[in-house]
Amino acid sequence: MKPYRKSMNYSYAIGAFVTIELLENKAQYVEEVFLSYDIKEELKNKIIALCNGNNTRCSFNDKAIHKISGKDNVFVMGKFRKYESALTNENHIILDNPSNFGNIGTIMRSAVAFNFKNIVFIGNFADYFNPKVVRSSMGSIFHLNVTSYATIQEYIKEHKTHTLYSFMLDGKQRLDQLEQFKKPYSLIFGNEASGLDSSYHKISHSLRINTTDDVDSLNITSAVTIALYSAFINS
Amino acid sequence: MKPYRKSMNYSYAIGAFVTIELLENKAQYVEEVFLSYDIKEELKNKIIALCNGNNTRCSFNDKAIHKISGKDNVFVMGKFRKYESALTNENHIILDNPSNFGNIGTIMRSAVAFNFKNIVFIGNFADYFNPKVVRSSMGSIFHLNVTSYATIQEYIKEHKTHTLYSFMLDGKQRLDQLEQFKKPYSLIFGNEASGLDSSYHKISHSLRINTTDDVDSLNITSAVTIALYSAFINS
Repeated sequence: MKPYRKSMNYSYAIGAFVTIELLENKAQYVEEVFLSYDIKEELKNKIIALCNGNNTRCSFNDKAIHKISGKDNVFVMGKFRKYESALTNENHIILDNPSNFGNIGTIMRSAVAFNFKNIVFIGNFADYFNPKVVRSSMGSIFHLNVTSYATIQEYIKEHKTHTLYSFMLDGKQRLDQLEQFKKPYSLIFGNEASGLDSSYHKISHSLRINTTDDVDSLNITSAVTIALYSAFINS
Repeated sequence: MKPYRKSMNYSYAIGAFVTIELLENKAQYVEEVFLSYDIKEELKNKIIALCNGNNTRCSFNDKAIHKISGKDNVFVMGKFRKYESALTNENHIILDNPSNFGNIGTIMRSAVAFNFKNIVFIGNFADYFNPKVVRSSMGSIFHLNVTSYATIQEYIKEHKTHTLYSFMLDGKQRLDQLEQFKKPYSLIFGNEASGLDSSYHKISHSLRINTTDDVDSLNITSAVTIALYSAFINS
């Protein structure tokens, strides 16, 4: 049992909630489930039933859980193979060079909440199965199709029917003044610190979220969540 | 120079951005500013000019910065006295027993972005000057009036003109179907894990944020940010 590294072809779902989401949605990729001896009876029975239903190996192993999670209050952990998932022709969320695992997970949680099925990563970031992402997504990652492209141009080449909307501090139109997103669409968000570069003005409709002048910008997860919610309630 | 503890009557703004927000908005509470020898010339000049304008002591002290921040890439740190701030009669945000410093700071950032001036904490949490809150607020805390009450009843007693709206998973009305918030109002949000208890149905208008059934709930900062944004664009 080895601590997670990006280069591995497997990862870990740490905690009962996310492991249940894994077993209920992506059982075919689960290699093994580990339980703590301190697990409560009811939870233990639920996990074991799920594992039995999928012919998944399940064993008690506090040492493995502690080694991988680094914590003493984790009672369930799932080990799963990383998998490829193809995007559907529905709407997409595109994250260009994000850098914070917690933010990415929270964005996935909002994505599922607001009926998005597809997330695309642009650039060097390709570690979306990192256990920190999985955990902060609360298992939402197992409801999503996730993939990555080296550049936005490569993405566009394969998704010519999608209308692109970029969220930028100097976006040309206010989000709340946009009548409706033209389906299928792709909502594009930049890096936490640097945002999207100005070339996005040319290749997409640029939007901005209206705020007071007292902040430089919103937190990236706040900006994404507002955009997804707006799309969801106006759809 | 001591690491931060809740019981202290002072706290720290860690990093250039938040220290500048501190100096520009709450200069009267700053006791001292520390600079790293590695600070860039332009930033150094800006900080020193701000300190001079306020008669604030400013010195080079990498040791102090490292001891308090625990990091090697921090170039500016401000030490400030904790202060009281009275609520205005405008709209309020109420956080009932929040528990995560990063979430609270991010909520403060959204609050300032969407023109809220007042935040109230209910319950045991009273550590809103924790350096982690200050830092994740990106200095927004220095634009806000922040105070706390032991119970929601004590808050209500002093703010009878405010209309109360609670955000609950089983809220009676959908946020996007509310015509308008009745001013002045208070938007109330519960703890990350446990939410608001059912007594809030009786003492307030309960609202829910419409989502798919594929998530249990939104991240708390996501929920608050959506509520504040909705209030802002409909005001």
